[in-house]
Amino acid sequence: MEPVSLPDIQKAAERLGGVAHTTPVLTSRQLDEASCARVFLKCENFQRVGAFKFRGAYHAILTLEPAEQAKPVVTISSGNHAQGVALACQLLGRQAHIVIAQPVNPLKRQAVLGYHATIHEVPDTGQAEVKLCDLLEQLNGVHIHAFNDPRLIAGQGTAMLEFQASIPDLDVVLAPIGGGGLLSGTCIAAHGTNPSIRIYACEPTGALDAIQSVRKNRIVPMTNPRTIAEGLRTSLGDVTLPILRKHLAGFFTVEEDEIVSAMRFAFDRLKIVIEPSSAVALAPLLRREQALIGKRVGVIVTGGNVDLSSFFEKLL
Amino acid sequence: MEPVSLPDIQKAAERLGGVAHTTPVLTSRQLDEASCARVFLKCENFQRVGAFKFRGAYHAILTLEPAEQAKPVVTISSGNHAQGVALACQLLGRQAHIVIAQPVNPLKRQAVLGYHATIHEVPDTGQAEVKLCDLLEQLNGVHIHAFNDPRLIAGQGTAMLEFQASIPDLDVVLAPIGGGGLLSGTCIAAHGTNPSIRIYACEPTGALDAIQSVRKNRIVPMTNPRTIAEGLRTSLGDVTLPILRKHLAGFFTVEEDEIVSAMRFAFDRLKIVIEPSSAVALAPLLRREQALIGKRVGVIVTGGNVDLSSFFEKLL
Repeated sequence: MEPVSLPDIQKAAERLGGVAHTTPVLTSRQLDEASCARVFLKCENFQRVGAFKFRGAYHAILTLEPAEQAKPVVTISSGNHAQGVALACQLLGRQAHIVIAQPVNPLKRQAVLGYHATIHEVPDTGQAEVKLCDLLEQLNGVHIHAFNDPRLIAGQGTAMLEFQASIPDLDVVLAPIGGGGLLSGTCIAAHGTNPSIRIYACEPTGALDAIQSVRKNRIVPMTNPRTIAEGLRTSLGDVTLPILRKHLAGFFTVEEDEIVSAMRFAFDRLKIVIEPSSAVALAPLLRREQALIGKRVGVIVTGGNVDLSSFFEKLL
Repeated sequence: MEPVSLPDIQKAAERLGGVAHTTPVLTSRQLDEASCARVFLKCENFQRVGAFKFRGAYHAILTLEPAEQAKPVVTISSGNHAQGVALACQLLGRQAHIVIAQPVNPLKRQAVLGYHATIHEVPDTGQAEVKLCDLLEQLNGVHIHAFNDPRLIAGQGTAMLEFQASIPDLDVVLAPIGGGGLLSGTCIAAHGTNPSIRIYACEPTGALDAIQSVRKNRIVPMTNPRTIAEGLRTSLGDVTLPILRKHLAGFFTVEEDEIVSAMRFAFDRLKIVIEPSSAVALAPLLRREQALIGKRVGVIVTGGNVDLSSFFEKLL
């Protein structure tokens, strides 16, 4: 019995109706030619807060137990989950407390503050866990984990439900892997409808914990990640690991220069802004991975939150 | 009797079927909130060659007179028209000769060469006209003008036909103005179907020739343009001026800092790559122009060809 089922994701999709965007699916002749495949891009970079993370955060907070409904929400995140929780709390009329380890990206701070969340800055990730516990105690708060939570996973899976509704005959799905929340929801949604879809996790070679964790069937902690794909620097969790072991067809690992090239392909050729984590799932197509040639390949473009200050400051 | 009619544009749309992309229309809650309007973006940045220019170039070359069908195609352009002509010639099995005044952007050179066109570099725009005449004579070539050509205008108008087919009840249409080819086709397509649509031309204050030309009813030449919107540095032509005088509801003029801000809004919030010329048509919405408030506003996002080298070189 899995902790998340297809009906859970279908219910989440109903709850997110009119709140989360139904994001468009884009195709590109140039991408098809470059990859020797037929590629469909599920553009979650067009989702609210610029990333799929809004789906899970909103759904997890909306479906908290009655006893937790009035409590302040607390989470640790310096990335898109922080924005997802902050916006979800604003929409649901709740207090959000976000613990962020320094250095804090000023653009991300601004985005979170824009949704009226409270930010608690701490010197490092170790201190973040301490601060989280303090806040949960002091505020009588409720913790919304960034990926290891069945309610959140059900929310993330709604992107795949929409994807299959618009493109019903995908052979393969590619998505990046960090903590595995998106991919867990994606696996259950995809295989619940079509058990033959092959789902691959895409991971930077500078942060190869997930592939090891799945192979060894234990959580190999992420230590000293070296990748620009900020969103993928986390370890798996005990909820996500068994789901991934059961469903994944395999992994594609991607070098840093491939991440930047894929990101640039998206900007220059596809004219969409994607973040490095999303580029990790595009890169296997651009190197024409054997398993993808001739296939109908769906890519979950997870987000588009990129700091372009250095570019725009030069223009003025 | 106008030189381009609605049936001309409808025929052009048939000819472009399966060759040009039917580009998507995007909407954004954030943009609607920022503008106090309901905004629809016709994303020609997703068109082949990354700009609407492919439509007109392909249509003009396809519909050349029989006596001109075998001749090499010659044009002057350092921008998107060059790429449009080069790709159209490649698809139609014709030779393309592109005259480009220095300095030549290396990325644009590469794109044109990628379509197997021949580039003729000249020191300045004055020399470009001389070179054009030389090539037409030496090669027995045929000239495809960048905007002042009814066949080309009919091709550009197909973007508006598609736009109205997907969003039938627009109140207002915004588009940038350079030589006026896109706007001429847009006016005839829009008013041919719905005479009450109000169409505004958007022009940088650093290149204010079109507004003067329309007011004075004579072509005021563009001298010393000072704008990052490269595509808008040209004067009107004798085909486009009368069409614009007849159809335009007015002009919005836009400062350079507004262009950069609108471009950044597109990248940061909408997650799409747009070039400065397109940002010129977004800027009036972001300053909440009175005539746009509460209206259903269509914007033609003309292209997405931006040199992001400086940004990506930093990432690696």
